[in-house]
Amino acid sequence: MAETALIGLDWGTTSLRAFRFGRHGGIIARRRADRGIMKVEGGQFAAALDDAIGDWRAEAPQAPILMAGMIGSRQGWVEAPYAACPADAASLAGALTAVPSVAQAYIVPGVAWRNGIAAPEVMRGEETQIVGLGPLSNRLVVLPGTHSKWVWLDAEGRMARFTTFMTGEVFDVMRRHSILGRLMPGSEIAPAADGFERGLDEALSPDGPGTLQSLFSARARGLFGELPADQLSGYLSGLLIGAELKEGRQAIAHWGGVMGAPILVGGGALVTLYTLAFARLGLQVETADEDAGAHGLWAIAAKTGTV
Amino acid sequence: MAETALIGLDWGTTSLRAFRFGRHGGIIARRRADRGIMKVEGGQFAAALDDAIGDWRAEAPQAPILMAGMIGSRQGWVEAPYAACPADAASLAGALTAVPSVAQAYIVPGVAWRNGIAAPEVMRGEETQIVGLGPLSNRLVVLPGTHSKWVWLDAEGRMARFTTFMTGEVFDVMRRHSILGRLMPGSEIAPAADGFERGLDEALSPDGPGTLQSLFSARARGLFGELPADQLSGYLSGLLIGAELKEGRQAIAHWGGVMGAPILVGGGALVTLYTLAFARLGLQVETADEDAGAHGLWAIAAKTGTV
Repeated sequence: MAETALIGLDWGTTSLRAFRFGRHGGIIARRRADRGIMKVEGGQFAAALDDAIGDWRAEAPQAPILMAGMIGSRQGWVEAPYAACPADAASLAGALTAVPSVAQAYIVPGVAWRNGIAAPEVMRGEETQIVGLGPLSNRLVVLPGTHSKWVWLDAEGRMARFTTFMTGEVFDVMRRHSILGRLMPGSEIAPAADGFERGLDEALSPDGPGTLQSLFSARARGLFGELPADQLSGYLSGLLIGAELKEGRQAIAHWGGVMGAPILVGGGALVTLYTLAFARLGLQVETADEDAGAHGLWAIAAKTGTV
Repeated sequence: MAETALIGLDWGTTSLRAFRFGRHGGIIARRRADRGIMKVEGGQFAAALDDAIGDWRAEAPQAPILMAGMIGSRQGWVEAPYAACPADAASLAGALTAVPSVAQAYIVPGVAWRNGIAAPEVMRGEETQIVGLGPLSNRLVVLPGTHSKWVWLDAEGRMARFTTFMTGEVFDVMRRHSILGRLMPGSEIAPAADGFERGLDEALSPDGPGTLQSLFSARARGLFGELPADQLSGYLSGLLIGAELKEGRQAIAHWGGVMGAPILVGGGALVTLYTLAFARLGLQVETADEDAGAHGLWAIAAKTGTV
């Protein structure tokens, strides 16, 4: 096997992904495990790390280990203080937190920013994915998910501003626990496309209702038989993603940015839905390489001079 | 006991209230029972009615019975078709649905309106409370609750337009089932006033975040210790009621109405919170008589000429 220059881990709440990098940053092996920080009991992170990549380490004891994600949170292994905006690979590399009990093991800081009167904004893991996108400037990066993030990269390509939308969690909680869920069959998550586009158009309409109104309208349409039950979940998804785009557009304008051609980071059905949604605003998205997180780990390690 | 001219029931989802009216519409007796339509098993509404007011009826067999609320819904006793906007006491009185099995028993229709491209809007029970407010014109009536309603009364005092916000249910579902709830102690519903005003100000700020952003900010403030845990519930409530006011203001403007001095219908803590919230917009509210629903039943019966 080629020489191992770095072992990288994207270690999140529910799962971890591990990467073994060759001398020039190529990924020479990869793994995924259901050992997110919430699934590591009693703080046994050293043992979990050993389970995940102990064999790699035995073969390449000289290779540093770099970790990003919730592993650096208060609920993780060692709390890695947040770096401030503007942040980039160099500033992150300069603020790594060493894991005391493991030689050459470091955690990438999350990034924090205070958005005017609003609450502090924080990310952990996304900053590494963004670094992994490579050089970009004056661009919007969107990371859809449970807590969807919009990040503005300034002229120097630094993460300058960002904000978070609870879109995915609101969708999930409303679908499971509100009266809307009672109208939806089974536990179907995959939204029917027709419902999605209808919800989207309603949310994006300039004279359309606000989010609290829209949520009720999903119920009314269901009761009146205007939407088949199997479209309600998609309709709800469209309403919420549409609302996110409306709120996000306002945030970007407030920051003096432009939506431009947003870069979507993520995978699966969500990317398809967000691509559709941005198209409704006349914006064509670019989709990130699914290994952005791995590329980011390499780029940060490279800035430390250890690889 | 004075002559009984009418027996009225405000029969909702979780409870019912019954009123015995004298010849001039005065309430000569009243009762409340936990026999909302969801608690009447097997469609035994006739028996439930007998339990509730059988003795009144025995004493005053000539008095008609008028019911309003969810008793007229598809899940209720007899489905009472919706009346259209603009609606008032006369149009409601002209569209009563008779209960086939009970002599002289009628159900007030709900009201439906289609709000542009948005979903059909519906109410059941609120229309009767609004009629009970007495003569009003060019006024906004707000009925806070699980599904909060804003109703615009036109120059003739008719219910001309209305819309619904899922404020109360979103609050409840997010508090119980989202990551926000995990930061909140116990099952405390009564929001601490400080948190409420902070959430309200954030939501009402012209440059403030949108609703999906705000929901995340509640979590961030909790994590950063910027809000004591016992204020988070109030903060969430303030964010959502503030969002309702913002959305509602836009709806009113769209209808060509003015917020003016809104009339708040309801009772308890919610009225206090909404009063505070409207004050933030410089608007002083009027609070409705808590017997608005009873007055409405009388007013509708009076329009039929039977009382």
